[in-house]
Amino acid sequence: MAQVQRMSRLMVKTLRDDPADAETLSHKLLVRAGYVRRNAAGIWTWLPLGKKVLENIARVVREEMDEIGGQEVLLPALLPKDAYEASGRWEEYGDLLFRLKDRKGGDYLLGPTHEEIFTQTVKDQCTSYKDLPVILYQIQIKYRDEARPRSGVLRGREFHMKDSYSFDTTDEGLAEAYALHRAAYQKIFTRLGFDYRIVSAVSGAMGGSASEEFLAPAAAGEDTFVDCPACDYAANTEAVTFSAEAVAAAYDIAEHGPVVELDTPDTPTIETLAAHLGVPASATLKNLLVKVDGEIVAVGVPGDREVDLGKLGEHLAPAVVELVTAEDFVGRPDLVRGYVGPQGLEKVRYIADPRVADGTAWITGANKPGKHAKNVVAGRDFDVDDYLDVVVVEEGDPCPQCGTGLKLDRAIEIGHIFQLGRKYTDTFQLDVLGQQGKPVRVTMGSYGIGVSRAVAALAEQSADDKGLCWPAEIAPADVHVVAAGKALQTELAVEVADKLGAAGLRVLVDERPGVSPGVKFTDAELIGVPKILVAGRRSAEGVVELKDRRTGEREELTVDEAIARLTA
Amino acid sequence: MAQVQRMSRLMVKTLRDDPADAETLSHKLLVRAGYVRRNAAGIWTWLPLGKKVLENIARVVREEMDEIGGQEVLLPALLPKDAYEASGRWEEYGDLLFRLKDRKGGDYLLGPTHEEIFTQTVKDQCTSYKDLPVILYQIQIKYRDEARPRSGVLRGREFHMKDSYSFDTTDEGLAEAYALHRAAYQKIFTRLGFDYRIVSAVSGAMGGSASEEFLAPAAAGEDTFVDCPACDYAANTEAVTFSAEAVAAAYDIAEHGPVVELDTPDTPTIETLAAHLGVPASATLKNLLVKVDGEIVAVGVPGDREVDLGKLGEHLAPAVVELVTAEDFVGRPDLVRGYVGPQGLEKVRYIADPRVADGTAWITGANKPGKHAKNVVAGRDFDVDDYLDVVVVEEGDPCPQCGTGLKLDRAIEIGHIFQLGRKYTDTFQLDVLGQQGKPVRVTMGSYGIGVSRAVAALAEQSADDKGLCWPAEIAPADVHVVAAGKALQTELAVEVADKLGAAGLRVLVDERPGVSPGVKFTDAELIGVPKILVAGRRSAEGVVELKDRRTGEREELTVDEAIARLTA
Repeated sequence: MAQVQRMSRLMVKTLRDDPADAETLSHKLLVRAGYVRRNAAGIWTWLPLGKKVLENIARVVREEMDEIGGQEVLLPALLPKDAYEASGRWEEYGDLLFRLKDRKGGDYLLGPTHEEIFTQTVKDQCTSYKDLPVILYQIQIKYRDEARPRSGVLRGREFHMKDSYSFDTTDEGLAEAYALHRAAYQKIFTRLGFDYRIVSAVSGAMGGSASEEFLAPAAAGEDTFVDCPACDYAANTEAVTFSAEAVAAAYDIAEHGPVVELDTPDTPTIETLAAHLGVPASATLKNLLVKVDGEIVAVGVPGDREVDLGKLGEHLAPAVVELVTAEDFVGRPDLVRGYVGPQGLEKVRYIADPRVADGTAWITGANKPGKHAKNVVAGRDFDVDDYLDVVVVEEGDPCPQCGTGLKLDRAIEIGHIFQLGRKYTDTFQLDVLGQQGKPVRVTMGSYGIGVSRAVAALAEQSADDKGLCWPAEIAPADVHVVAAGKALQTELAVEVADKLGAAGLRVLVDERPGVSPGVKFTDAELIGVPKILVAGRRSAEGVVELKDRRTGEREELTVDEAIARLTA
Repeated sequence: MAQVQRMSRLMVKTLRDDPADAETLSHKLLVRAGYVRRNAAGIWTWLPLGKKVLENIARVVREEMDEIGGQEVLLPALLPKDAYEASGRWEEYGDLLFRLKDRKGGDYLLGPTHEEIFTQTVKDQCTSYKDLPVILYQIQIKYRDEARPRSGVLRGREFHMKDSYSFDTTDEGLAEAYALHRAAYQKIFTRLGFDYRIVSAVSGAMGGSASEEFLAPAAAGEDTFVDCPACDYAANTEAVTFSAEAVAAAYDIAEHGPVVELDTPDTPTIETLAAHLGVPASATLKNLLVKVDGEIVAVGVPGDREVDLGKLGEHLAPAVVELVTAEDFVGRPDLVRGYVGPQGLEKVRYIADPRVADGTAWITGANKPGKHAKNVVAGRDFDVDDYLDVVVVEEGDPCPQCGTGLKLDRAIEIGHIFQLGRKYTDTFQLDVLGQQGKPVRVTMGSYGIGVSRAVAALAEQSADDKGLCWPAEIAPADVHVVAAGKALQTELAVEVADKLGAAGLRVLVDERPGVSPGVKFTDAELIGVPKILVAGRRSAEGVVELKDRRTGEREELTVDEAIARLTA
């Protein structure tokens, strides 16, 4: 876009109505304001205004990545299968991966992320500890065949990402690269104008040691996170953990009476048991049986809580967690389905939620059909082998840091930083010659920012009922000049626009002949440039109106005053 | 890359030997100097230095496209089949197209060029003559599954292109958009430092009215073009045409004797005929039979020349040209295989090369087995239905403009401009409301620059035996500072580099500890930054050496003089 772009020559068709298939605010507004155009599910064209915003975000990301010593490269998007087969991801990605064959029948994929290829690149380019550390980044188009691509450019199948990768010879080096990225991301998201939180994330099956997500709270978000209203704690719901010690401190084993067996026929579920006894579900202990790498394990949680199998899986990874089936009870008289209690489970590993801390007393199965027991006390009647926080987090759960009731909020993941460790460097045997003359296995971090997603996330956070409302640094222009009238106003608008352009501002000037001031105002508010300058009824006197798109504040100024204000 | 990039922190591994699979100079040098890395046949990674050059080229292209009012957009690379099926190119592209399916079984392709999608975009965004003209461009990664991807990034399967498209309501508008592009391309290729020619190109099956190619002469080029050493004529070999009138002017029908039949047994080929008669092949007339849309047509050319079937196909498009087979002679006693002459071909359309002009006399088939005829004169004994220039051009052929013997040269196609007309707007019924209130069919131009190819083409044209040698505007840095010595030289080199960086220059500084001055010099020449500044033996006096990479000229200067010289 030239420094001064005339609306009469800009390819933009604004719409008054929301597109029928749009669910989220950003999707509606980016289409209505002419920023993007849909080509297929999750596949979008960036029209002139959209391309400008996308490029502005990329520029900010690039500047801050350069600032921490990142070196920009560009890897292919079309990749041969071999590296992803070596890492196992050719299979693991399942339907999420776009796969294709070339004319010779060779297998290829469209890269969803590039850990494998960066590892190979560094193996090829770096041979000595002197060549490290290195931070490489690219701003690239990536591909994931999402099952339900939706929300416009928020979750596309073809999307723009900044991905970077750090390579170090020591864990301390990795920690430093991680810290550099964390600081750079804070600068980037602040410059982009985001309201965001950094939350700890479950490191997942990748086996990394530290991982945080950058979340932009927004109603359209697909992620849920917990947020403490009292302290600075925030986390991915799967990453919330608090300690059994903290809970145990509030209880005293000595205060409980002895175990009493209860006759509870036909009460194999918590609901039937609680109803039969007339107690709240929270007084009961639910024991879920699962198989961990084929071995039966019991998981105890308060009866009113659900086990988060995803969270359990993350805690136990790389072990595989499965639900038990009827066949697993064959030859196991110690496991009485529906009436399991931890006090009789001598041959079974017992994992419990921290809420089942020492000193807490429960109504639970008596390990006999139709029987339960009360006053079953943790630390007296049974021992917990491992405390793991595996329940689904609920609004009001205590903050692990300060105990205040947590809030649950929706957010868009805009960034992710991850101490990946040696998973990929092991796969590709990436060693460099160490200072002692021996090969050293390299350790790796991986860091992502959703660049096209950031366009939608910023639209979500900043839009109002009139339309888009961009933060200054990424807006498609600095000022939108509107000629609200005929020849006189148009002449003045173009003159002011040219002066602002000459002063280095990026200007959009609406000089469209035959378009009413009302339509121009509506379009200006929809398009969302931060400052709107109107050449209207006092144009003959050289007086214009300067309006702030966000606050709606407006004031009349002479042309010179307005230019001075905008270029200050 | 930061303004000042230290070599010790740059990911670059230079190689002393050419990669085994490299054929062209640019392929060898771009790999050896650490600009690119091969991932698969025709699929490349742009390493930090390469990314910089690629980006510099893209910036120049972008600036000049903006200058002619081009609006930058970005279309998807992953595209649903439908638009390409509508245009016929889903089939026409054959194996050149990467095709794939998504998780729902839908057919997709990786875009090789985007005429279809731009036409759809404009149909969606522009509804009135007031919305036109419009020039849209993108700098995008494109995909073509080349049969023999080779020559490094010169002909990749994943490659970067600037493609632009103009949309106008009138032919005059299209001509203007074409002229704007032509001028912009001249500026671009001049700024990039190219030696280039603009040649007329065959418009091809697309049916456009005007088309020119921008060719960069280079030994590694895959295109051959003709170049007149005397005048400004240059053309794609398939586009060379000269007129039969010009040839006829040199001949006089009246000077020839009557036709004489010759007994020429077993001479069905030109070689056997010329040997039998003891005449040069150029004295004979070769008549090739082909089928044009199923109808047999004869094509006459001098016996020493070859028919260029590609050229013939281009001339006759959209008709389909095929070679005849034995079956085509069934029931055609007028066609005597090996002994065809135009003087007896009353039922067959006769196309001839302009060299078979009126007044020229030939030895040709007598339309009887084993018989030929001499003194068969064009314009007397037979008539030519259409003169088409269909022979393979040869060195020394007369220039169609001035008659001088043409030169044949190899070149790399770096740009192509094309008045496409209404082929795609007809397919997609792209009309806008005209000034008279009636729909007007839009006319279209398409224009391309190979951005990644330009990196290789510039390398080809500018490299010397020491390595790469970039034109200033696209070099990865403005100056390469070499610390040729120990602590003192390194300190001075870094100090000068920082000063140059502060003055706005892009600086590469080689301060690698433990690397000899010889290795640093060799690397600097291989990497090819235009200016090399050496802090060497006179560093203590504050004297450095400034060397021009291309000319090798060097002079000793004080640090201040060197900085003043470089920042001038």
